[in-house]
Parts: sequence; structure tokens; C-alpha cells
Amino acid sequence: MQAAQLLEPGRFEIRDVATPVAGEGQVLLKVVGAGMCGSDVHLVRHPPKALPLPLTLGHETTGRVVELGPGVTGLNTGDAVLVAGIWSCGTCPACAEGRDNACSFWATRTAVPPGPGLGHPGGMAEYMVAPARSLVPLGDLDPVTAAPLADAGIVPSHAISLARRQLRPDATAVVIGVGGLGHLAVQILRATTACRIVAVDVDDDRLAAALDHGADVTLRSEQAAEALLDLTGGLGANAVFDFVGTDDTLEIARSTVATYGAIVIVGLGGGTLHIHAAPAPIKRQSGLPWGVSVQRPYGATRRDIAEVIALATAGRITAHVQAFPLYAAPEVLQRLEQGHVHGRAVLLPNGPTA
Amino acid sequence: MQAAQLLEPGRFEIRDVATPVAGEGQVLLKVVGAGMCGSDVHLVRHPPKALPLPLTLGHETTGRVVELGPGVTGLNTGDAVLVAGIWSCGTCPACAEGRDNACSFWATRTAVPPGPGLGHPGGMAEYMVAPARSLVPLGDLDPVTAAPLADAGIVPSHAISLARRQLRPDATAVVIGVGGLGHLAVQILRATTACRIVAVDVDDDRLAAALDHGADVTLRSEQAAEALLDLTGGLGANAVFDFVGTDDTLEIARSTVATYGAIVIVGLGGGTLHIHAAPAPIKRQSGLPWGVSVQRPYGATRRDIAEVIALATAGRITAHVQAFPLYAAPEVLQRLEQGHVHGRAVLLPNGPTA
Amino acid sequence: MQAAQLLEPGRFEIRDVATPVAGEGQVLLKVVGAGMCGSDVHLVRHPPKALPLPLTLGHETTGRVVELGPGVTGLNTGDAVLVAGIWSCGTCPACAEGRDNACSFWATRTAVPPGPGLGHPGGMAEYMVAPARSLVPLGDLDPVTAAPLADAGIVPSHAISLARRQLRPDATAVVIGVGGLGHLAVQILRATTACRIVAVDVDDDRLAAALDHGADVTLRSEQAAEALLDLTGGLGANAVFDFVGTDDTLEIARSTVATYGAIVIVGLGGGTLHIHAAPAPIKRQSGLPWGVSVQRPYGATRRDIAEVIALATAGRITAHVQAFPLYAAPEVLQRLEQGHVHGRAVLLPNGPTA
Amino acid sequence: MQAAQLLEPGRFEIRDVATPVAGEGQVLLKVVGAGMCGSDVHLVRHPPKALPLPLTLGHETTGRVVELGPGVTGLNTGDAVLVAGIWSCGTCPACAEGRDNACSFWATRTAVPPGPGLGHPGGMAEYMVAPARSLVPLGDLDPVTAAPLADAGIVPSHAISLARRQLRPDATAVVIGVGGLGHLAVQILRATTACRIVAVDVDDDRLAAALDHGADVTLRSEQAAEALLDLTGGLGANAVFDFVGTDDTLEIARSTVATYGAIVIVGLGGGTLHIHAAPAPIKRQSGLPWGVSVQRPYGATRRDIAEVIALATAGRITAHVQAFPLYAAPEVLQRLEQGHVHGRAVLLPNGPTA
Repeated sequence: MQAAQLLEPGRFEIRDVATPVAGEGQVLLKVVGAGMCGSDVHLVRHPPKALPLPLTLGHETTGRVVELGPGVTGLNTGDAVLVAGIWSCGTCPACAEGRDNACSFWATRTAVPPGPGLGHPGGMAEYMVAPARSLVPLGDLDPVTAAPLADAGIVPSHAISLARRQLRPDATAVVIGVGGLGHLAVQILRATTACRIVAVDVDDDRLAAALDHGADVTLRSEQAAEALLDLTGGLGANAVFDFVGTDDTLEIARSTVATYGAIVIVGLGGGTLHIHAAPAPIKRQSGLPWGVSVQRPYGATRRDIAEVIALATAGRITAHVQAFPLYAAPEVLQRLEQGHVHGRAVLLPNGPTA
Repeated sequence: MQAAQLLEPGRFEIRDVATPVAGEGQVLLKVVGAGMCGSDVHLVRHPPKALPLPLTLGHETTGRVVELGPGVTGLNTGDAVLVAGIWSCGTCPACAEGRDNACSFWATRTAVPPGPGLGHPGGMAEYMVAPARSLVPLGDLDPVTAAPLADAGIVPSHAISLARRQLRPDATAVVIGVGGLGHLAVQILRATTACRIVAVDVDDDRLAAALDHGADVTLRSEQAAEALLDLTGGLGANAVFDFVGTDDTLEIARSTVATYGAIVIVGLGGGTLHIHAAPAPIKRQSGLPWGVSVQRPYGATRRDIAEVIALATAGRITAHVQAFPLYAAPEVLQRLEQGHVHGRAVLLPNGPTA
Repeated sequence: MQAAQLLEPGRFEIRDVATPVAGEGQVLLKVVGAGMCGSDVHLVRHPPKALPLPLTLGHETTGRVVELGPGVTGLNTGDAVLVAGIWSCGTCPACAEGRDNACSFWATRTAVPPGPGLGHPGGMAEYMVAPARSLVPLGDLDPVTAAPLADAGIVPSHAISLARRQLRPDATAVVIGVGGLGHLAVQILRATTACRIVAVDVDDDRLAAALDHGADVTLRSEQAAEALLDLTGGLGANAVFDFVGTDDTLEIARSTVATYGAIVIVGLGGGTLHIHAAPAPIKRQSGLPWGVSVQRPYGATRRDIAEVIALATAGRITAHVQAFPLYAAPEVLQRLEQGHVHGRAVLLPNGPTA
Repeated sequence: MQAAQLLEPGRFEIRDVATPVAGEGQVLLKVVGAGMCGSDVHLVRHPPKALPLPLTLGHETTGRVVELGPGVTGLNTGDAVLVAGIWSCGTCPACAEGRDNACSFWATRTAVPPGPGLGHPGGMAEYMVAPARSLVPLGDLDPVTAAPLADAGIVPSHAISLARRQLRPDATAVVIGVGGLGHLAVQILRATTACRIVAVDVDDDRLAAALDHGADVTLRSEQAAEALLDLTGGLGANAVFDFVGTDDTLEIARSTVATYGAIVIVGLGGGTLHIHAAPAPIKRQSGLPWGVSVQRPYGATRRDIAEVIALATAGRITAHVQAFPLYAAPEVLQRLEQGHVHGRAVLLPNGPTA
């Protein structure tokens, strides 16, 4: 079969590889959609040393069940499924309560996390195998448009779940960066809360789209800090979700979050937030207000995935998708580097009617 | 009456002042115990400009009800009470759900927080007035030993409440700095959880005392990071409470906290924790594990105070107290600066039998 | 001034009474809207012995601040406010964390609860006094349409808050009885969750309105049990809110709730739910599934009120109101007994332009 | 191998059966301890029709790993493990968040629950097979004394977890029935909370033991209701755990629980609690206070099991055990019926040194 593989740093090609076989507890999938994003660009350019090369990329995958490995029950041939991006152990204390993304595999810290397109072959291929317990049924949801949800949908959903206590009807939530993940964050917030949603971005088109997705207020980044304090009577925002993560956006978060509010950092733009062991300043000129929690989440849990699928099935969230054939993967990578993709890029390794 | 007042930066003296009168909604108290701590030293040396000088200090106070102002019910003359250190508004959305320490007075950020010994005259005097709603009944608890609980007891209790989700029987909790607040943190953790408690300090005497207070393991700071990872099989600690807050102790917290664990910074030692918008490192050489929440709490709520009083009444926690007469206040301040106080310093403005 | 008073069982009349004066901690209000509902009918027909007669009724009140009693701050003349229906003590452990409706006044159980139109004169009058801490600012919200929110809005909001954990995007929530409170429950669920909302009633017009208010599915009561199990693949509903409370509706709740789901009983229709200390039945022929929580809430907290005001201000919920002059109160009572009121009845003691 | 099997209603015998083989995802265990309790008596006397007879009983099992079936990782030969009593699917929405006891298998309601000694052969045999994901490592804990924890330890732990919100330091918790499960409930409450623990029983010896296990107060059942209201100043208990479940004990729970408190019914003694859709009574003569939640939990989750193992490993809880050889199983059943077992009965199918 064909697969898009990383061979060595910078070398990302379509290759002929053997079709995999489902082992015990595994399922063979015919891939429908394989999302492609900035993380893939980063992997191609700067692969961690521990990455098992050559490696088929693809961590945002949907497919249809082709064959069940020994011991697998509860799934049927033809079922459409979403592949969780974290293949957790299932038995450690964190997994035992469904916190797959805190699985104790992290304790070893000697290798890449166990997931598709990282420690294992991913979805940019005609077929892939995955552990049965890492598959979440899509039901009637279209697997093509669902593919990007496997990353761009569930990551914001998990991030929002961490600040759920703050998101009550009289609260203000800020989404900084309303692109791939952020535009879904706005939709999820609109569907699951009644709080005031403020979208912040440097791009007017994105801000206009955010209004369509349910934002109540849009602000350009350069005016965001002052405007947010005005909007909230000086109290600040109860929750700030930063999908960019540069020094500039973290400064917006720092200077506008409310006392005992939440900052959730999703974007990995290389910025730094400093937390001082010192009294909160009387004015907001520096430092954080008292009680603010700062958290940088990882991925999502299977519970988050089930919720995102429910939201998409009910039509409450929609990902913008631009589809490509598998062979275009190297070209799509370049487009992503140049910012020339509109919506979320999805490879269709078995064509548009799989 | 006599009061220990701050007159100008560095000038802290006993003075004769008028006995206050309880206004509407207020209560006149005969002060029993007035705790004195490092915060007072800081206030005397570096008072914020907005501090209304001259000011009677004292933010850790217990007393007995002498007179009820107009409109006050639910208290009786002679009742022993603890004075909450945050005089919140009682009606803003945060106060309406009991989060006094997130009261919207912070929004103004133009002045010192409204509390005794800060925006209002405090407890280092023979008498003081306080809002009725900021008094918590002590019941049968001795008001002398209870005085330091008003700060050193309730602040750890609140800090611990923020990580309650992490503190299950198979968890490891770390208390860095087992002095005034930390030794009570160990006792509160022991009384309210079954988790493994690890005490970290630079002082062997304090570590020995921590064992008596319920710690399961004690570690000297310089060996703490490595030992904690050993103890937890590389997973790290589920919650780290830093009662010191220097760069060194924050580095212990950073390098030993578990994925999705909690760091609660209580000590204001001037250190800085950096949170990078970047992937968590495979090894712990820098950065935080994924999902860690970092929070720097402020004071406590009235609910926290009620819980601490219940713990002390049941004999589950005990504060070490060294008592002094009111006139010794300036001298006690010097002792505190020199580290010559054993246990928590408490002034007894009306003598030991008040 | 004029007031609608209960004089003795069954005798409810308009009378001339003295205009009240605001004492310490109290506020004098010019009443704008005074809601009237089935509870008032019940009070008139079967007043508890402890009720202090004659009594001005009215527990759903909005008004404008006329005068602040001594010691009151944070409110200004002219402010529109909603009067909380529970005048809790503000200082007991429950109140200290904002759970006004669990205030320890219940412990005495010797008298009627302290609230307007119960232990104290209510809102069916030109003026009333209320404790400052029991007033929640309405901001820009119209006080006429806001009046019924003081009961019909906040009670469902509180009920829903008790099952918040169950109300995730892939959940099914059932509202039984979509009348005065139920139609607002549907709107609150729609605004604050993405779950599937199923409205159940015996009245087709109400079911049609429920669809407009955001319900996804409507069912007539007689078919509800079977249809709900079909809809949920036999799993049942995650949360059932019963706004009727008869044996028939409680049987719908019992037979359709999911394992570890929630039943919240709001309607006080006199039915009984039996909880057996016996294994859950294999079929649903009797008994409850394992783990179901059953709860019968009381009123709401000030936090719930603030959230409902935020929802109404944002236009996410709307109460249907039928307005009447104060002198019509006795007639409105009769109409309510006969079921001849459309929407929520609101008296306007100072006319429509107050 | 030898196994204690139920052949038909009332016929429970030791038989020779084939040693089982571990299939995919399964593990073969050499049984160390197999607890035996009143549930087994009930099964022998009144087996559900759907029970697959003949059936090896035993739902409280510990053992050592002998062989891993295909696809099993993370366990090693010789590891001591506890077998969870609920063999949940692992993939439904409830399982995905670790709520094994709410697994959607309940939705079918056509057969016995999937667990050892119920739908599958249990632990009263020399060997058994179990799904790898239903095994929880015991670490250094002695598998003999750990066996009863698999039911008598984890069920109270789960029950207590449901009322965790109520169990703060100033709360009162009541344990009704301090026998097999109740005496462990007292120990778990003592280890994990600082609340006041009140033990209620009809047996003075059990009450004396409860004091040793950490209860603060003991009450004989007939005086419990009045004494509890005295102890709590009329407020009632914040949480009541009923490990008996008769009409008499449920009446104690009903008449002593606080407003917005919790009643958790664990004992299945056949009693009934009635919840009226009517106002809470002013006095406690009938009905429940407002806001009380009533819940009848099922089993426990793997998370609960891990916590109980941690408690036992730390020496904070201890189950009293009376050991028997496997061949004595029929005799032990009779003893259990006659109440002649002291502590928890545990069969040792492979002898005391397995």
C-alpha cells in the first residue's frame, strides 16, 4: 500500500509499504481521512531522536473497520471510527479513571509518546492498525469532515473542560487565535456554555468568521487587553484560552485574566509566562492576579472525543476541511509551511468515496 | 487604649489611641491574641503607598465580643471569635458563593486590600472593631492558641483545598518548607487525607518535627528532587505545596511534579517559575510536565476558617505559639527579622487571662 | 400604601398599610413586579400555623432602590434589583460558602422559612424592605419581565446545577412538565449545555412551545417511558427533571433514568418515589437502576440568581408574563386556581412605567 | 482442579473441573484468597434464572499471575493481583472515563452482570482466568488479607467517594451497621477525612471495635436518632451511610440527615425509603429535609480499588479475616447462614503459603 513516510529529518515521501496486520487487541482500518497540521511540519523538520524512522505520519485519523484482531469485540466491519491520538496503557491509575492523557507512560520519558504518527505508524496511508480501545465510534458522522476533529476538535474540548468551573453564564471567556483549533473552541464554548465569548486575533477575516461561530465580541490583538478590562468592569476574563502561545499572546492572557480565573495554554508558539512568588500587583502592570491557575494541557481523553463526536453529530460544531489525495502529502506539507491551506488539510488515502 | 502602630516606613511604636466604636454591622472586640509574622516585618519596612498611616497592625486576631453594633445578630457578648483577614464585600458574584478571597474589590486595584492591619486598624491593640460577617465563632477553642490559625492555619488549608482532587490515598504530596505555615500544612494533610506526605526543608530540626506532625518521609532540599522521583517510580508528586517560593524551591517543584499534578505556591520568596508554550520535555531537564496546574492562592475563605477551627477543636492540628505582651511588639518585630522566634509569635494585648 | 394581604385562611385582600422603613442593613424598594403563582394559592388556602398574619404575600419581586438603611453600601438609589426569596443568615457554615438554601435556620424547624411573603412582608405592595445582602442587581434587565425569574427562573437553574455533571454533550436530559418553571428549564438547558433535551407533557401546545424554546424531542407523557428507552438505546436518560411531581411523572422518571443518572424532583405534586434497599432489577419493571441520585432541591442561591439574570440579559431565556394591577391580586388568585393565566402572572403595584 | 460450584438452587459442592486457559486479553491466576459472604448465600439459595449453571462462585478474589494470554502486557508471572468484581466493557462512554460500575452493559438488562462468580467462573477454585484490564496489582500487600478488600473494602470506599463533598472537617458522618463492610467504612473515613464519625449498631461488641477503628462516637440504634440531633445542634448529619438497609435503619437515616446532606444506601436489607414530592416538614416527623441526595451505589471502580489497596498497604485499614481451605466452602456457607463467622471468611484454594 501507499504511505506518506518520514525517512530522515526533512525527507517526507510517498512510499510503497506492506499492509499491516491486526494483532491481538488491534483493529485493521481502511483510512478515510488523515488530517495534517503544523505538528507534522514540526516533526518533519525537527524529529525527536527517539522517533522510529522511517515512520508513517498521521495523528488525526478516521477510518472504517476492515478486520478485528484476536480478542476484539464491540466493533463490526464497516464501522466508522475515530482514532484517538494517545494510545495509553489502559491499566495505570490515571487510565483507570479515563485520564488517558496522564497515562503513566510519561514517567519513563525516554521515548516519544505512544500514538499514531509518533511512536507507531499513523494514518497517512491506505491502511493502519490501532488498538481497539483507542477507537471511538463515529456513528452516523461523516468520516471525512470528522478527521480534523481528532486533533483540532478534541484538543480545544479538553482545554475547555479544564476551566469548566469558570464558564458560567455571567462569565467572560477569551479565545486568542481563532484559526484551526480556535475556531472550534469558539463553537464548543457556544454550544456548551452561555458565557460571553470574546475572540481575539490579528486577522479580520478570522474574526468575522468567529462571529459566525458564536463569538459575542471580537477584538484585534493590539487592542485586546484594554478592551477586555473595559468590557469586564476591570475584573478581567474568567478564562483565557491561548491557541497561539507567543510572548505577545501570553501577555494578553496575563494582563486580562481575573482573580482566580484560568489561563489555558494550548498553542505552543514558544512564548513564556512568568509566575512570580510575590504579591499580586495592585495594578496589572506585571505579574498575575491572585489565585489564577495556569495549565498547559496535552491532547484529550476518550471522554473528550465522545463529546466532540456528539457535538458534531448534532450539528453544533463543524470543522472547515480542504481535502487532498494521499500522493499530495509532501506538497501539502509545503503549503502548510507557507500558510496556504484554507481550513484544515485532510488527506483521503482511499479517495473521496471511501 | 494601647495599640502598636506603623507611623511611617520603619517606624513601628506603641501609642495611645481612642478606643473604637462599633458602627452598623460591626462588632467591638476585646483582643485576646494578635499574631505577628513576616508580613508585618515587610509592611513596616516597605509599606505600600496606599496604606492609611498611622495604622494599627495585626491581621491574625482572636478576641471576645464586647458590643454589637446596630443591626448585628447571631453573636453574643463574651463569644470568642476569629477575625477573617479579608473583609470582602459580601455581595459581589464571588462573595455570593463564598469566595471571599476573589471578591471583586480586587478589580479596583487602586488601594490596599480591605482587611485588618491593611486597609483598616488591626488586632495589635486592646480593642478593635470588625464587620460581623468577618467573624467566625471559636466555640470552645482557646483564643490564644487559635490566634495564629487566622493566618498560618487557614492559608495552608485553602492551598490544600485547591489540590483536593489530587490528594487521594495513592497520591504523594510534597510540602516544601515546614516552618510556620508548612508545619500546619503537614498536620492538615495528615488529618484530611491518606496520601503519602513528604516534607522538604533545609533544617533537620524542622524535618524531625514534621515527622511528629504526620509526614511519612522527610528530605533535605538538596536531595529532594532525585529522591522524590525515586519514591514515585519516576512519576513525580501529585501535588507540591511550596511555602518558601525561592528559585531553588520552585525548581524542586518544577522538576518533581507529576503529569497533570498541581503546584501551589504559597511562600512569596521572590522566585520565578517559567511556563513555556512548548512541548513538555521528554526528560525533566527543563519545563513542566504536561497538564500541571500552577496556582498562587490568596488568603482563605470563611469556609476554610470554619474547617481549620474544627480541626483545632478536635485536636487534629496544633500551632506552636510563643506569647508576648503588647508593649513588646517592636521588639518582637526585631526578633522576627533576626529569626529569633520559636513557633508563632502572638501578642496578648489584654494579658494571658483575657 | 396598598398591599395584598392574607388575613386568615382563605381571606386575601387589598389593604391600606403603613409604608415600611429600612432598618440597619436593609433597603427600601419601590416594587416594580410581584410574581404570583401556585404557591400563593396554597398559602392562602392552607397557611402554616406559624405564618405571621396578617401578611403581605409576594416571594417573586423586583423593585427599585428608594432608600438605603444604615450600614448599607454598594447600592444606589434607582438601581433595579431582584429580591432573593431566601433571607439566609449569611454567617452559618452553609451561608459562608454561598449555599443560602441550606442555611442552618432550617435546623430550628419551628417556624416558616425567613423570606418575603413567608416570614416577612412580601412584594405585593407599593413598597417593601429587604436585607441588602438578599438583593441582586438587575443591571439593564427590565424589572417587569424579570419578576418571575425570581422563582420560575432560579428554581430550575438551581435544579439543573445539581445535575451539571451529567449534562455533557452526549447526554440526554428530560424535562417533565414544560409549564411555568419547565419552559424556563428547557431554555436554560439549551443555553448552557449541548445535551439532547426531551420535553414531556400532557399538553400539545406546551410541547410545541418547548420546541421553540430549544427542546430537541417532545413526547406526550403516556408514550414517554417507552420512547425514551428507544431514543437512548435502552440506556435511559442521564438526568430527569420532574416539574410536576405526581406518582405518574415520578414513575416516568424512575423507569427511564440511566444507571448513575440523576432524578431532580422540583414539582411538589404529592407523588412518592420509593427507593428500595434491594438489588436493581434486571428489567426496569420496578425499582431504580444502580447509582441513581434522587434529590428534591429548595429554592436557589444568590449565585443561581446572578446566573439567571445573566442569561436573561443576554436574551438567552425569556419568561412569558401576563401583567396585572395590584388591586387585581384577589382576582388573579382565583384565575390561578382555575388555570386561567397565560404565562406567569405579575402584579405591577406602581403601574407599568415604574 | 478443584472448584466450589453451584449446580442448582441450593446445591453447592466441591467438584473436579478442567483448569481454564487464558484467551486473548486474559490472564491465568493461581488463586490465593477467595472471600465468601452473604451475597454467595443469596446466590446459592435464590440464583437468578440467567445464571449459567454449573457456576464456580467467588467474586472477592486475589491471586498470582501464572500465564498471560495473547496480547497482554504490563503484568509479570508471580505478580499478586486483586480481581475487580465488575468486568466492564472498557470502551463505552462510562468505561471511557473509568466508571466501570456504570458500564452500558446494564442497558441490556437481560442477564446477570459480567463478573466473576456471576456471569463467569469465580475465584473459589485453584485457578481462574480474568481479563487483564480487570486486575489491579497488589504490590507488596499480602494477598490473603487483601482478598476481602475486593468487596468489603472497595464497596465502602466507593460509597464514601459519592459523598466526598459533604465530608469536610466540620462535618458529621454516620455509619449504620459496623460489621463486615461498615467496620472498613469507619477506617476509610478515619484515614481520609477529619470529620466526626458516629458508628451506629445494635451490637455492643461491634460498637467497641468501631471506636478502635477510629469512630468518635458510638450509638446504639434505638437511641441513635435523638442523640444524633443533639450532637449536631439539630442540624443533623452531613452524610449517612447505611450498611444494613432495613426499614428501621433507613428511618434513622431519614430522620437524622441534614438539609442538603447525603444518604448512601449500601446494605440491601429490603427496606424502603420514601421520597415525597411535597414540602419538607418543619419538624422531622416525616419526609426528608430539602436537598438531601439519596443514592444506592453499585460495586466500585478500578480507581476505588487502587485507593483501597493504597490504604491497606499503608496500614491505614485492615480487614479481619478467618481463613478456610477450599474444601470447607459448603460448610462455610452454612456458617455464614448461621452467623458463625468472625471477621470476613476467606477460602485459600492453594493453601496458606500460596
